[in-house]
Amino acid sequence: MTPEALMQLAIDAAQAGIASGQSPFGCAIAVGDRVLACERNAVLETVDITAHAEINAIRTACRNRGDIFLSGAIVATTCEPCPMCMAALHWARVDTVYYGASIADATGGGFNELTLSAADVVRLGKSPVRLVSGILAEDCRRLFDLWKQTPGTKAY
Amino acid sequence: MTPEALMQLAIDAAQAGIASGQSPFGCAIAVGDRVLACERNAVLETVDITAHAEINAIRTACRNRGDIFLSGAIVATTCEPCPMCMAALHWARVDTVYYGASIADATGGGFNELTLSAADVVRLGKSPVRLVSGILAEDCRRLFDLWKQTPGTKAY
Repeated sequence: MTPEALMQLAIDAAQAGIASGQSPFGCAIAVGDRVLACERNAVLETVDITAHAEINAIRTACRNRGDIFLSGAIVATTCEPCPMCMAALHWARVDTVYYGASIADATGGGFNELTLSAADVVRLGKSPVRLVSGILAEDCRRLFDLWKQTPGTKAY
Repeated sequence: MTPEALMQLAIDAAQAGIASGQSPFGCAIAVGDRVLACERNAVLETVDITAHAEINAIRTACRNRGDIFLSGAIVATTCEPCPMCMAALHWARVDTVYYGASIADATGGGFNELTLSAADVVRLGKSPVRLVSGILAEDCRRLFDLWKQTPGTKAY
């Protein structure tokens, strides 16, 4: 499973979320060729402010693996993880996190982001998680455009 | 509801968690005199690495209030929130977070903490959430001693 193939699954999940009125974020997790989770943001739908795509994907992956640790896993997330999600990925001990759009893109969409990058959380927190930006970045950024054109969506 | 009274509920929840083999963390959330949530860490029990006491309490409080925002809420958590939990509290737009023990106490217990304080997440992230340390701190630190004396517990 390449990072790009995994990211395409995350993009597909985000698009399905947008189509059902949710926020434009998706995340997929794999170990080798086995996809452990592919989830989207579900904050509005589940009335749960913690239900970001990455948190949902980590929870599903833990359940599917039967383990609180996701060692050896790679993660593809359509947007740079916020500090909540980046720290959760650290706790889960994933190997590498690939992301597409940036927190700046999410802020531009109206989301109330902390001004703390995923790279800063990793660096200041001394996390061993590897972080790689720019995977299918243009496709990931386009999710925000698609979302803005969808009636009834809202940022938070 | 005073911060100390709310913290006592969080301590009680943490003690119940320790008694059932879970990690020594509790968190309670209130608006005025109404307690919206009182939860403990459930990572091992639910096989969910994101199930910290604060995340569980935020999810319960959102559900009980029927709102993704917890504006006007005060939070008492037995240990300084990790970056995942501090960022989640920012997203939830709570008013004030009171904590007892420090991340250093949790690291001393063997937990794989990021070296990034809650105060740093607030400051660097430019969050409006108010953070107050040292509430029933000695009682909160004692939770780690109680936990270490309990057979079969494990850090992660």
